Amino acid sequence: MMNEVKYCNACGAQVEYRVPAGDHLPRHICPRCDNIQYFNPRVIVGCIPEWEDGRILMCRRNIEPRLGLWTFPAGFMELGETSGQGAARESMEESQADVEVGELLAMINVPYVSQLYVVHRGRMRTPHHGPTPESSETRLMTESEIPWDEIAFPTVLHSLRFFYADRAEGVARIHTLDLSSKPRRPRDREVSEGDPLPGQPVE
Amino acid sequence: MMNEVKYCNACGAQVEYRVPAGDHLPRHICPRCDNIQYFNPRVIVGCIPEWEDGRILMCRRNIEPRLGLWTFPAGFMELGETSGQGAARESMEESQADVEVGELLAMINVPYVSQLYVVHRGRMRTPHHGPTPESSETRLMTESEIPWDEIAFPTVLHSLRFFYADRAEGVARIHTLDLSSKPRRPRDREVSEGDPLPGQPVE
Ligand SMILES: [Zn+2]
Ligand SMILES: [Zn+2]
Repeated sequence: MMNEVKYCNACGAQVEYRVPAGDHLPRHICPRCDNIQYFNPRVIVGCIPEWEDGRILMCRRNIEPRLGLWTFPAGFMELGETSGQGAARESMEESQADVEVGELLAMINVPYVSQLYVVHRGRMRTPHHGPTPESSETRLMTESEIPWDEIAFPTVLHSLRFFYADRAEGVARIHTLDLSSKPRRPRDREVSEGDPLPGQPVE
Repeated sequence: MMNEVKYCNACGAQVEYRVPAGDHLPRHICPRCDNIQYFNPRVIVGCIPEWEDGRILMCRRNIEPRLGLWTFPAGFMELGETSGQGAARESMEESQADVEVGELLAMINVPYVSQLYVVHRGRMRTPHHGPTPESSETRLMTESEIPWDEIAFPTVLHSLRFFYADRAEGVARIHTLDLSSKPRRPRDREVSEGDPLPGQPVE
């Protein structure tokens, strides 16, 4: 959980919150060492891991938010990796699955939590999968087994719909979507999996 | 320019750099207030603004890096905006152009600087454009006028190639690319337009 930004992380002095010269938005500026702390949207990377029989790998969340609801493997992109590398890493961390990450399936803007959701297609190299600290249960599912009423996030729901719509047509498109307003029902709200970002509305 | 992260930005205490419980990478952790400072890849949003005669709007950079070289409008995505909104904002800031941002053209991973480059298509609502603090010159160009040897970044070069390849075929695809190794020639290297991120190689 990130608290309000009050100090310079380079020298420890108290920061000022104002628009730097030549900039257009207020930033956290250090009056002592001139360090500026920038906060930008985060990228969530994920994939839909498919086994050779067409079933896909779903994970039941073992952590808040959305504890107990279902998702495919996804999480924050880390420094130094591509979106595909991040999706493969998250698959291993969340489901023990060894996934060959493929082409982009969907890029979804979620501006109300300052996230960009990047979902790839994926092929499981082996049928192995299993629970992890982040997933209480992992399961290979046919389309009719997907628990549509127990999906953790709208981004996951839309990505699954894109995936199955393409499959029904026998195509592999790249989909884009802007989720421009916060859903009313609390359980449909997209929320950050980590700390809120300064300047973001936090409920 | 960001210096090394040494202090908690919430309480000002000196931070420790270690792997938090349940995490997989070292983070900057505050031993006093438990605040963790995360650093993740940044998204660069841009667009290729097209006027109704088919020419596109290019900008000559008035700032480092790549001062004097050419790009289309692009910059860091800000909190609370979509990639399209960010691309429209950058177009106005860098070229005074009022652009209706359209569909995604390219998503390019640039892991060696921890960036994800998101480029949209765009239509100029009016023919107006002009210099700004960030652009010493703006110019509408036909394909044959593009200064291919004076393009600021590889991501810009690839995006322009995608754009013109699609136009030659009469299609509008979404392209993806991983720039997985740093180009050898210094002028071809992708570099951050802002501060380097902790844990990133900086030259
Ligand atoms: Zn400072
Ligand atoms: Zn602290």
